[in-house]
Amino acid sequence: MPSARVKRVVERLEADGLSALYVTSLPNIYYLTGFTGSTAQVLISPQRRWFITDFRYHEQFAAQVDQDFELIDNTTRKFIEEILPSLNGAQLKRIGFESEHVTHAAFLKLSAADGFEFTPTAAWIEDLRLVKDEGELARIREAVALGERIFGELIALIGPQTREADLAAEIEYRARKYGAEECSFSPIIASGLNSSKPHAGFTKQLLTPAAPLTIDMGVKLNGYCSDMTRTVFYKDCPAQWRKVYNVVREAKRLAQAVVGPGVAGSAVDAAARQYITDEGYGEHFGHGLGHGVGIEVHEAPRLARTADNILAVGQVGTDEPGIYLPGEGGVRIEDMFVVTANGSENLNSLGDEIQVVG
Amino acid sequence: MPSARVKRVVERLEADGLSALYVTSLPNIYYLTGFTGSTAQVLISPQRRWFITDFRYHEQFAAQVDQDFELIDNTTRKFIEEILPSLNGAQLKRIGFESEHVTHAAFLKLSAADGFEFTPTAAWIEDLRLVKDEGELARIREAVALGERIFGELIALIGPQTREADLAAEIEYRARKYGAEECSFSPIIASGLNSSKPHAGFTKQLLTPAAPLTIDMGVKLNGYCSDMTRTVFYKDCPAQWRKVYNVVREAKRLAQAVVGPGVAGSAVDAAARQYITDEGYGEHFGHGLGHGVGIEVHEAPRLARTADNILAVGQVGTDEPGIYLPGEGGVRIEDMFVVTANGSENLNSLGDEIQVVG
Repeated sequence: MPSARVKRVVERLEADGLSALYVTSLPNIYYLTGFTGSTAQVLISPQRRWFITDFRYHEQFAAQVDQDFELIDNTTRKFIEEILPSLNGAQLKRIGFESEHVTHAAFLKLSAADGFEFTPTAAWIEDLRLVKDEGELARIREAVALGERIFGELIALIGPQTREADLAAEIEYRARKYGAEECSFSPIIASGLNSSKPHAGFTKQLLTPAAPLTIDMGVKLNGYCSDMTRTVFYKDCPAQWRKVYNVVREAKRLAQAVVGPGVAGSAVDAAARQYITDEGYGEHFGHGLGHGVGIEVHEAPRLARTADNILAVGQVGTDEPGIYLPGEGGVRIEDMFVVTANGSENLNSLGDEIQVVG
Repeated sequence: MPSARVKRVVERLEADGLSALYVTSLPNIYYLTGFTGSTAQVLISPQRRWFITDFRYHEQFAAQVDQDFELIDNTTRKFIEEILPSLNGAQLKRIGFESEHVTHAAFLKLSAADGFEFTPTAAWIEDLRLVKDEGELARIREAVALGERIFGELIALIGPQTREADLAAEIEYRARKYGAEECSFSPIIASGLNSSKPHAGFTKQLLTPAAPLTIDMGVKLNGYCSDMTRTVFYKDCPAQWRKVYNVVREAKRLAQAVVGPGVAGSAVDAAARQYITDEGYGEHFGHGLGHGVGIEVHEAPRLARTADNILAVGQVGTDEPGIYLPGEGGVRIEDMFVVTANGSENLNSLGDEIQVVG
């Protein structure tokens, strides 16, 4: 019996008049099958489904993937040219492919497959992934809790010999030790002037006293990600930064108050942006307010000026306004939320008060 | 003045009758410009070159990229639709794009750009990256040395409470502490039965005594990767595994003896594979012998049955035969080499003798 997720793909195939969907995005394959390896494709038709991988992953296929999928060995990497034609007893003709994940070079190969008509599709599986079920939400909550635990430990370690890179190392070490598969992205540890760069990474520099220290981190636990940011202050928080911090925090709260089913992603962004603009920092909040989080740390929905999506119950996202002053520094605060029938629930339990550390 | 690398792109543009190359692959952009951020595109024409990124990276652009590049802000993500047409004073017409990196969906956008003729190109920058210059080789050597240092420390930590995941955590922690940007891939720590899976990842299990423990790891240091594998034995190495180990080691040595300029990648693979087959394990060496290493941990050249490349001086790759016995375990040993005028140099200084640990 196919899983409920595969069934929804089959329903859409039938509705759209396609004979199969060819899935090549690994996060989408994980969503459909639970497979966590690095090389796979999946072909789903109403009657049969195939799991295409190479020699390295035969055992992992058997351990992770529903036996409703038939294994096809693709160690030669010539599935399209050599193996697909032999499946034609299954009456495959118009096959959807993932236009946003297939490269132009791979598309040329698909186009050359004699007897098949490959047809672009957009976001079929991403649309399914958009609303999280209870099992997914439980995993996301665990990932958020682990991220907060690590953050709490991290803050206690900060001292005069601490370099940005040390904190990144501690985050990754603890993530692994506490059972995460990995960090959901390479941590951002940005102290002093570095904090004016929203995606700074980290350096080998010691922390700058009386300046912001932005820590943006997340873990991937049981296949699902968390993502959080806190800007703390090393040694002291001068009045200038206290003011900026409070504006960012209020913008975050105002935005979250707007989140709810039926609300436009652009309206949530606007709530934070309007406040920051009114406070005189509008030109220094250059990125979108937030993004969805799930199997990937950046996925739908979007919360941004140009977003055209409408939020629905069960969608999960980040609320992360920031103010970045070139040549001075910056502040970003980020919580995660889930959309509920009544509005939203903040998935973070960590406070957002100004914190002086070290 | 454009860098030597940009100059070579311009020469090829002129030779191929293109007015510009549109580069979207981040490793290729790093190679051309030194930019290490996560969002950028580059457009190179004989007269002018543009660096396209968003708000988050303006400061990083200024710090990392040659000022020969003009900055274009693409925070709206509509470069192709809205900004490219305004560059037409530069007489852009036929623009090459990277067919292996541009998705089909993005290609449709390029195709719709009025007045431009986007033309697929393959591996222009990858071809330049294939032969490493002295500066690149020095960085790769440093990455290899750091990987070996960490491996040595790791082995000394192994004890009865060690889980696979602990070793992965230690590798990543030390990589960061010792100045690497990150691990070049998520470490593989595969003990006992898990070692029969070539790409096992790691689990929360304790190590299996008297069984193989495969450690496949690498670091990224100053932009360049290392990659190494050692299979050691926890507590004891039974005779069965001693035999398998010696076959893999000899296959590795035979393959490296074949490496040299003008030699086919497939011939190097064949040297290892023939020996493993002669020893009766041919069906249990299911992957290719090796791959190039540089800015990416997997890049050209290829060493595999189906490889059609010819090695040349300055190319860097891995030599990593393995034998995987389903339901029992496996052994893989991996060194890196650089092709020299006389053959090759092994970049690893760590020995490959059987090592019993714990």
